[in-house]
Amino acid sequence: MNFGIIKRTLGFILVFEGLFLAVPIITATVYWEKEFFDILLTMGLCFAVGGVCMIGKPKNQNIYAKEGFVIVALSWIVMSLFGALPFWFSGAIPSYIDALFETVSGFTTTGASVIPTGEALESMPKCLLMWRSFTHWVGGMGVLVFIMAFLPLSGARNMHLMRAESPGPSVGKLVPRVRQTAKILYVIYTVMTSIQFVLLLFGDMTVFEALNTAFATAGTGGFSLKGDSMASFSSYTQIVITVFMILFAVNFNSYFLLLRGRIKEAFSSEVRVFFVIVITAITLITINLQISEAYAYTTGEAIKHSAFSVASIISTTGFVTENFDLWPAFSKGILVLLMFVGACAGSTGGGVKVSRMMILYKGATREMKKMLHSRQITNVTMDKRVVEREVVQNTFAYLFAYILVFVASFLLICLDTQNLTENFTAVAATINNVGPGLGAVGPAGNFAFFSVGSKLVLIFDMLAGRLEIFPMLLLFSVQTWKK
Amino acid sequence: MNFGIIKRTLGFILVFEGLFLAVPIITATVYWEKEFFDILLTMGLCFAVGGVCMIGKPKNQNIYAKEGFVIVALSWIVMSLFGALPFWFSGAIPSYIDALFETVSGFTTTGASVIPTGEALESMPKCLLMWRSFTHWVGGMGVLVFIMAFLPLSGARNMHLMRAESPGPSVGKLVPRVRQTAKILYVIYTVMTSIQFVLLLFGDMTVFEALNTAFATAGTGGFSLKGDSMASFSSYTQIVITVFMILFAVNFNSYFLLLRGRIKEAFSSEVRVFFVIVITAITLITINLQISEAYAYTTGEAIKHSAFSVASIISTTGFVTENFDLWPAFSKGILVLLMFVGACAGSTGGGVKVSRMMILYKGATREMKKMLHSRQITNVTMDKRVVEREVVQNTFAYLFAYILVFVASFLLICLDTQNLTENFTAVAATINNVGPGLGAVGPAGNFAFFSVGSKLVLIFDMLAGRLEIFPMLLLFSVQTWKK
Repeated sequence: MNFGIIKRTLGFILVFEGLFLAVPIITATVYWEKEFFDILLTMGLCFAVGGVCMIGKPKNQNIYAKEGFVIVALSWIVMSLFGALPFWFSGAIPSYIDALFETVSGFTTTGASVIPTGEALESMPKCLLMWRSFTHWVGGMGVLVFIMAFLPLSGARNMHLMRAESPGPSVGKLVPRVRQTAKILYVIYTVMTSIQFVLLLFGDMTVFEALNTAFATAGTGGFSLKGDSMASFSSYTQIVITVFMILFAVNFNSYFLLLRGRIKEAFSSEVRVFFVIVITAITLITINLQISEAYAYTTGEAIKHSAFSVASIISTTGFVTENFDLWPAFSKGILVLLMFVGACAGSTGGGVKVSRMMILYKGATREMKKMLHSRQITNVTMDKRVVEREVVQNTFAYLFAYILVFVASFLLICLDTQNLTENFTAVAATINNVGPGLGAVGPAGNFAFFSVGSKLVLIFDMLAGRLEIFPMLLLFSVQTWKK
Repeated sequence: MNFGIIKRTLGFILVFEGLFLAVPIITATVYWEKEFFDILLTMGLCFAVGGVCMIGKPKNQNIYAKEGFVIVALSWIVMSLFGALPFWFSGAIPSYIDALFETVSGFTTTGASVIPTGEALESMPKCLLMWRSFTHWVGGMGVLVFIMAFLPLSGARNMHLMRAESPGPSVGKLVPRVRQTAKILYVIYTVMTSIQFVLLLFGDMTVFEALNTAFATAGTGGFSLKGDSMASFSSYTQIVITVFMILFAVNFNSYFLLLRGRIKEAFSSEVRVFFVIVITAITLITINLQISEAYAYTTGEAIKHSAFSVASIISTTGFVTENFDLWPAFSKGILVLLMFVGACAGSTGGGVKVSRMMILYKGATREMKKMLHSRQITNVTMDKRVVEREVVQNTFAYLFAYILVFVASFLLICLDTQNLTENFTAVAATINNVGPGLGAVGPAGNFAFFSVGSKLVLIFDMLAGRLEIFPMLLLFSVQTWKK
């Protein structure tokens, strides 16, 4: 294990986090808020600790797979530990564990909150709200990817980091150089966020609201400024958000290919399946809401709310216009299922990912074919290319590791709170980085009532979900730390 | 597809089912019950239809994997369709779908009932109760395995059938000849059932109760004669049942090896892991019950009820001494988890099976090791023998197919009933052949309230669970029926 390079990279991360804190600092200046000093103190700490970590260039510059996983996992933990300080220093969130929960929820783009909705949320200083939304934006594309785009690191080293941080079964480089790829991704990300921001300004949002919402949508995060999330905004605003939630859940490779005019390639099978799932889910929920007599939606309203909820859940954003916890079981069942499906690989969304689901499905049907005709050897293919055997096996292993983490978390939460549906969806909403679950953790609730122990479990789940299970599990494996 | 041999084998099945009906016929004679004639009529139908199917020996005697799956799936369906007739003819269960549900629940050793507990159950004719329990016994070891033991079929043909009907990731022959293996299994099964029957007679059960209970325990079924299942019997009786539920959940190979004096081999890693799980679960639940102030159990009671429930659920029997639906969430969570783990492969129990869980776990950790040291190639081993790559892949495919069936069933049930926990555990209790779930389908409830549609879904799940997913899925695949 190359500890020198790990320490140095964590130093980089902290210095960059210090720079990110400029965003809430500026906000505090604009609104003349006294939390300015809490954020400034955090910024100073980031620079100081980060600077110390960066002292002394390690002789050994190699990052192997092992170091890649450890760096990624520790980066996200360290980043969250420091990122929580402004909430705690200012007293806006009195408990440090709560502040940490909120920050992890931000960086992992979960959007699960411990701040009671309503007055407590709406009276929060604007600079802290901005920091909260900005953590979504930073976490969405990945902070290491960001650093890669701006720091001159050698290529092979980068690839291991990028592979460990980026969502999806396999990572493709858009262009031969990793650094260039990271830059392109951030440019697309920034441009799309800006477009959404401008479109929101045309509606009934203030500049502050529009900026926060654009950050939270782009990262598929879901923190909102109001107790009722997006319910009280105009239909125009809600529709803009619906569209952008879906756009940010699409594989960013597609946008790159679109820009290059490679339209056919841009609509990869994953993207097509994603849209089929979205449209099917919206249709089924709309019909279910219309048939059930208990809901007095007009057809237009039913489509709008169903589309918003489906986009919000499958993109793992977590914004809300209607309390879907009150919807019929079939609609709730579909939404819970979509939490697990999640967004496309290479997007800012969470969950298991559409392409992984496709590999699992194709892998399973291939086995069934083999059972019928034992001699027939077929490969799993995606977009007419063979998916390597290794990737298929790794995806199935991912599925089982994911289930293990899920089950262990669920049992631990059960020691604390008694409602099984709530506990199940609390884990589902955090490990898939969605945000709201059902019941007490539903659209009308929050995560404040959990014990410290349960909160730590859910913090682990949010990180495990964002980093796709393995980096967080490997952190606890003896194998990783063995010489 | 060799239709000739399929038809002929289904004929065999029906004739044997006619013979099995002798058991309730004798019961009806002893207790002088008028349902004698309903059962006799069914017996006649079995012989007639079965006889017609057996006419004409097909030229092509080959059974390939394809035919194996189709025969097994259709056998169980046909057997259930006819087995339901006595309940329906007699009017004891007025709806045919309900009668079918009860019969499938019997043969698949699920034990989920549509008969309201209490008076309706206790006033049922004894001959029908006996038939219900006897279906557990027949289904437990497998009806095709039974036929193999008594019919002179060629070896290669048998292996495909045995593979498709027997539980577990791979089927081992105890002795070189399949027919001999099937005979040995049934001898062990009969002897163990007899021992339990005799031990129960020493307690507070009548001969009729002891026989029914022995059949239902041996098959890990769970149908009981009383509304409160096993709650009102003495501690002695409950302990005997606890022990035998665990014994019938152990791989039968172990008993064969024990008889041969190969003691070390008998305690295979699967059996050891099974006992570790059982003891851990009992301990955790006992502690959980003792710590929670809401439960006034003495330590002895807590251990007894916890041991009974754990044995009942992990063996997928489904007998009950205490309404575990009222236990704390952590205990309920463990029990739900055990439903999925299930018994050992090669036992009469259901669920995913311990050995399969072990293969999945070892396969996943192997992948994680590969992520750290990409050049290292390791095999999955069990009991120092390499598990073939094909078996590992097939097990992961099984996991995904299982999840797909589970999710689809859950969503369909959600169209009907509104409680998510109930719907989830209803599917879990049927697909794992356990019996009781939580809430309305819990120990104090039953499955009568579901719509016909939901009942058909759950019937499919029981069959899919017993036949381990693939035969039932392949029945609906175009590939299977293509020339």
